[in-house]
Amino acid sequence: MSPTTAIDGNSNPNKKFKVTVVGSGNWGSVAAKLLGSNTLKLSSFHDEVRMWVFEETLPSGEKLTDVINRDNENVKYLPGIKLGRNVVADPDLVNAVKDANMLVFVTPHQFMEGICKKLVGKVRSDAEAISLIKGMEVKMEGPCMISSLISELLGINCCVLMGANIANEIAKEMFSEATVGYREHREVAERWVNLFSTTYFIVSAVEDVEGVELCGTLKNVVALAAGFVDGLDMGNNTKAAIMRIGLREMRVFSKLMFSSVKDNTFFESCGVADLITTCLGGRNRKVADAFARNGGKRSFDELEAEMLQGQKLQGVSTAKEVYEVLSKRGWQELFPLFTTVHEISIGRLPPSAIVEYSEHTPNFSLVEGSAQYY
Amino acid sequence: MSPTTAIDGNSNPNKKFKVTVVGSGNWGSVAAKLLGSNTLKLSSFHDEVRMWVFEETLPSGEKLTDVINRDNENVKYLPGIKLGRNVVADPDLVNAVKDANMLVFVTPHQFMEGICKKLVGKVRSDAEAISLIKGMEVKMEGPCMISSLISELLGINCCVLMGANIANEIAKEMFSEATVGYREHREVAERWVNLFSTTYFIVSAVEDVEGVELCGTLKNVVALAAGFVDGLDMGNNTKAAIMRIGLREMRVFSKLMFSSVKDNTFFESCGVADLITTCLGGRNRKVADAFARNGGKRSFDELEAEMLQGQKLQGVSTAKEVYEVLSKRGWQELFPLFTTVHEISIGRLPPSAIVEYSEHTPNFSLVEGSAQYY
Repeated sequence: MSPTTAIDGNSNPNKKFKVTVVGSGNWGSVAAKLLGSNTLKLSSFHDEVRMWVFEETLPSGEKLTDVINRDNENVKYLPGIKLGRNVVADPDLVNAVKDANMLVFVTPHQFMEGICKKLVGKVRSDAEAISLIKGMEVKMEGPCMISSLISELLGINCCVLMGANIANEIAKEMFSEATVGYREHREVAERWVNLFSTTYFIVSAVEDVEGVELCGTLKNVVALAAGFVDGLDMGNNTKAAIMRIGLREMRVFSKLMFSSVKDNTFFESCGVADLITTCLGGRNRKVADAFARNGGKRSFDELEAEMLQGQKLQGVSTAKEVYEVLSKRGWQELFPLFTTVHEISIGRLPPSAIVEYSEHTPNFSLVEGSAQYY
Repeated sequence: MSPTTAIDGNSNPNKKFKVTVVGSGNWGSVAAKLLGSNTLKLSSFHDEVRMWVFEETLPSGEKLTDVINRDNENVKYLPGIKLGRNVVADPDLVNAVKDANMLVFVTPHQFMEGICKKLVGKVRSDAEAISLIKGMEVKMEGPCMISSLISELLGINCCVLMGANIANEIAKEMFSEATVGYREHREVAERWVNLFSTTYFIVSAVEDVEGVELCGTLKNVVALAAGFVDGLDMGNNTKAAIMRIGLREMRVFSKLMFSSVKDNTFFESCGVADLITTCLGGRNRKVADAFARNGGKRSFDELEAEMLQGQKLQGVSTAKEVYEVLSKRGWQELFPLFTTVHEISIGRLPPSAIVEYSEHTPNFSLVEGSAQYY
């Protein structure tokens, strides 16, 4: 095995991988910067990283892509950080992806279905994808994963990258970690790890796409619970207990949805570390804190409008979707935290209910074949 | 099975368990309060909870035990909280334990060997013990567990109870959790769970004494690392990453020391939850924060003297003991966080080194037979 294959899984030294980032928000821009600095160093990748930008006209009258390509800076979503001259903004989605065989998806999740539909038949058949998108939908029949959507619509393999990564801290090159979740193809996962890793951004891979991706969504429900505890001034003991119970429910829910999910995934950056970051900072925690301080008398809709300029909290909608799955299957008692978060968020229970259920170790023998998951 | 056996494992309705708490500091007093409120409710326990108090003369000239027995309050170590009239302070160690068959040990760990030696031959042969003591010694040949010390010197079975439990928050009846670790005897563990559980203090049991007890010690090393990160103003991403790496090293170290240790233990209150509490608050974190803010120029000895009135940080001595085990076995590379914490604490590396090692997934195949632990 040559040194090249050992590092990036590329057995043909003449074949260079070409990277395109689909998305250019805050996290997308940070990802493009990080990838761009790595493609310059790694011989098996083309230097250029193309970034699809949803075109906007800035207050100055200039196009966002023109400014990015002139100043190497996304002045709107990542001001003050140079992306590198080899990051090229492209307003044309189909043109941006046409030569790429490494596709990095990092857009708001509600846009992904539309984007994939536009890309059907337009991506290379040998392309590999990775999704950095947190927050897919949990439907009745189970969670609808963004990685599956990409795989199914585009007919390509799709990994995920999740973790305790606050974009602005990574932009400043502060030490952090991430987890790549992959299905079967270890050498592809290693190529992604290689492409994303830096001395300050440590990436490792686990063979568990669903586990990694579910961590990224379900943590937001736990962050609401942590925010309620903060808003009630309950202290660190209580907050730690709630986070722990939340991590357990994330784990059990994921394993009941996908029997392939592994316990070890929850010890990775995408699991316990992302949960900690999200429950310490993060907007789900923050708005839930305000909700509890107001005794639940002001609705999430009202607080979101005031605190988030109309953006919606993912945790609230995920809690609702999870609750629907639990109700349909009669599993509410197995998930007292998830259930209570939803009931608090719709005003059926007061915020203090978050610590009023007693834990009564859930009886998983009630769920056929599920005892092994606990 | 009668309802009595189902609840507390007591198959003889005429046999009542008698509880003595050995220790009366802050956590000991909270434990006595909690146990005293439960013995009044549970028919299989004698109402009285005896508490051995290391006698002191208060500034008023009164004996501490006299004040506790008159006012039902440990005015020195838990002022403002009523212990209950059935908690009886006893300055005579041998007298306090002589009738008890449920012994709760909760003293500073350095006193335990002396206390056990005084108790040899003085405890009932059918007594069961539980240790709430965090911080045993890690010796060359492996960790020296307090529960083993008690078992070996007194010839009785010993469980442990650990978790995210800050005594003062539990005294105020804020929601929190704990984990009982037991060896073999499930029915004894259930009796302890029953004796400690309240609606606000949720206890569960795992068959893993060593895992539970090691969590209680090793977390203090991770708390130093978290404190360094705080003192360097590194942000939540970095702190979460360091806590996660710390949890992994706790897990791998424990499993290398005792092959019986279980992964699931680290998902319990004694694992991830206690780690979170300790890294958010706690004096190890606090002094390490000050150490890093001073650029390591003021020693831990100096900061401890100033900030802790001469008390010593457990994390610093545990880090040293762990380091000795790692050096002797040539395992430093497998535990970059534990190793770095010690080297920072003795001034060999600057505080910023805590995020300068790159993670390079440790190669456990170097340790014979250990690959399975990772």
